[in-house]
Amino acid sequence: MSTLKDIQAPVKQEMNEFELKFRQSMKSKVMLLDKIMDYIIKRKGKQMRPLFVFLTAAITGKINEATHRGAALIELLHTASLVHDDVVDNAHYRRGFFSINALWKNKIAVLVGDFLLSKGLLLSLKNDDFELLRIVSNAVQQMSEGELLQMEKARKLDITEELYYEVIRQKTASLITSCCQVGASSGGGTDEDISKMGTFGTKVGMAFQIKDDLFDYENAAIGKPTGIDIRERKMTLPVIYALKHSTSSEVSTIKKMITDSEKKAANVKKVIEFVKEKGGIDYATKRMNDFLSEALAILKTYPDSVYRNSLEQLLAFTIARKT
Amino acid sequence: MSTLKDIQAPVKQEMNEFELKFRQSMKSKVMLLDKIMDYIIKRKGKQMRPLFVFLTAAITGKINEATHRGAALIELLHTASLVHDDVVDNAHYRRGFFSINALWKNKIAVLVGDFLLSKGLLLSLKNDDFELLRIVSNAVQQMSEGELLQMEKARKLDITEELYYEVIRQKTASLITSCCQVGASSGGGTDEDISKMGTFGTKVGMAFQIKDDLFDYENAAIGKPTGIDIRERKMTLPVIYALKHSTSSEVSTIKKMITDSEKKAANVKKVIEFVKEKGGIDYATKRMNDFLSEALAILKTYPDSVYRNSLEQLLAFTIARKT
Repeated sequence: MSTLKDIQAPVKQEMNEFELKFRQSMKSKVMLLDKIMDYIIKRKGKQMRPLFVFLTAAITGKINEATHRGAALIELLHTASLVHDDVVDNAHYRRGFFSINALWKNKIAVLVGDFLLSKGLLLSLKNDDFELLRIVSNAVQQMSEGELLQMEKARKLDITEELYYEVIRQKTASLITSCCQVGASSGGGTDEDISKMGTFGTKVGMAFQIKDDLFDYENAAIGKPTGIDIRERKMTLPVIYALKHSTSSEVSTIKKMITDSEKKAANVKKVIEFVKEKGGIDYATKRMNDFLSEALAILKTYPDSVYRNSLEQLLAFTIARKT
Repeated sequence: MSTLKDIQAPVKQEMNEFELKFRQSMKSKVMLLDKIMDYIIKRKGKQMRPLFVFLTAAITGKINEATHRGAALIELLHTASLVHDDVVDNAHYRRGFFSINALWKNKIAVLVGDFLLSKGLLLSLKNDDFELLRIVSNAVQQMSEGELLQMEKARKLDITEELYYEVIRQKTASLITSCCQVGASSGGGTDEDISKMGTFGTKVGMAFQIKDDLFDYENAAIGKPTGIDIRERKMTLPVIYALKHSTSSEVSTIKKMITDSEKKAANVKKVIEFVKEKGGIDYATKRMNDFLSEALAILKTYPDSVYRNSLEQLLAFTIARKT
């Protein structure tokens, strides 16, 4: 299988240029802020979002200045949302660094998030990138609404499969959707390209989140700490499917296990076993592969190219990841 | 002196219409979010921001649909920043209601803030209100940068008067600046009107914040709990002026008092006395009045009207307020 480096190769130069410009765009005259920005840049991840932006721009048109600004806008908003998430999750550790939140406290995290957001907005407004802004604002709304929907519903034990898809579409997929729309829009794609790339991004995002939810169950097989979602009463596709295909007496036994905080550890193991037996893991894996096939089918409507090939490899890479 | 009701009278109908539309714009399909929005609307304040928008639109042009959308955009962003502030301040009580933060926790507060922000953005983008969006994004950047600048500098005991103005201009005045620019821009004012109204708003905002900082010292005279800024080592204009006009031995005595956490209560009283004696309160009051006069002088360049009269009264009202 291709490595991330292979996948990035066709847009390597653009990615490097992008990183340089992104650093510049984060500059501030407030020293405290500049220090935090340096820190954020150091802990940057795999840069998957700009990669989606550049590759989709390349297969639907041509990478240009607007593509760079679009990628920067998304990265600024994504970084803002990571910083805000540090507050949201009360996470004190992210990607091996201490989170902004732990180091500088909640108040600064919120302000830095707002600052990044406004930087992104001003960058787009200055260049009349209104369509890109529309795409990305839409994603911000969907992500926050999705997270809130999840809080409202996902801990209810009788969440339906449909609602689960709705939550992950809004919460996770909407960002990748916007990356691919921004790519197509900035690269000069037609309205049809933008719409097709949006659907492509959504399918990829859905597959990505189902994979993420499957980790909880798969890790059990290789002896890793597991069952965190179950422990937190977060109902994901494997258990949703399993409960749907159980007798009402099985359902009430499992629900009791999930809610019984006394015997948590032992129960989590039993619930995972039950989900496996009922075919919940096979079903979720199948649904993930369906979303992937649908995404690949959309790619196939474009002519073969190094960019299309990279996108195909990127899907395989995304799903094969072990962490 | 005029009451707020008198002041609002010329734009009463517009304000009512605005409130109705604002409620509608906050709707969401997520129940939890809808509940929080209802709650936010119930605890709404004096609606000073839309008032500035409508009145400045009226004196530079004519209130229209864009003015309404501009007021809604600012109110959405202001509400978002209040919700985020609940996290920032860790405030559990605001305007007599429990804060969103206390009731629904930090995570929801951040998400709701983001949701409101994106609602505002999408509203503007849908209507091609790019100039309004530019004005308001600028304000968001300034506000977050100003708060961070304050955190970095305001607790240092040797903050200068110039830096104090820079902090309050960014942190507080920028929002009122944007209200007045949005009013002038949406109402059809010329570039000169927009620029003049921006300066007007900044002057008002500066006066407003100096008044706010004076409260700490004035309350002492009427026996109210006082000295909260001093207690928190927040250096505002009265004490900055007093230290600037002291001998170096006085400066070191006062600085010791401010930093000595052991004898806080007794020291706070002494610091307040010292600031008064050195003329810090008189000086801050004078600077506040200077900003007000400059703001009024800008208004006088417009012909007399019920709207101009309301704005003049609004300044007096803002400064006379006791809380």
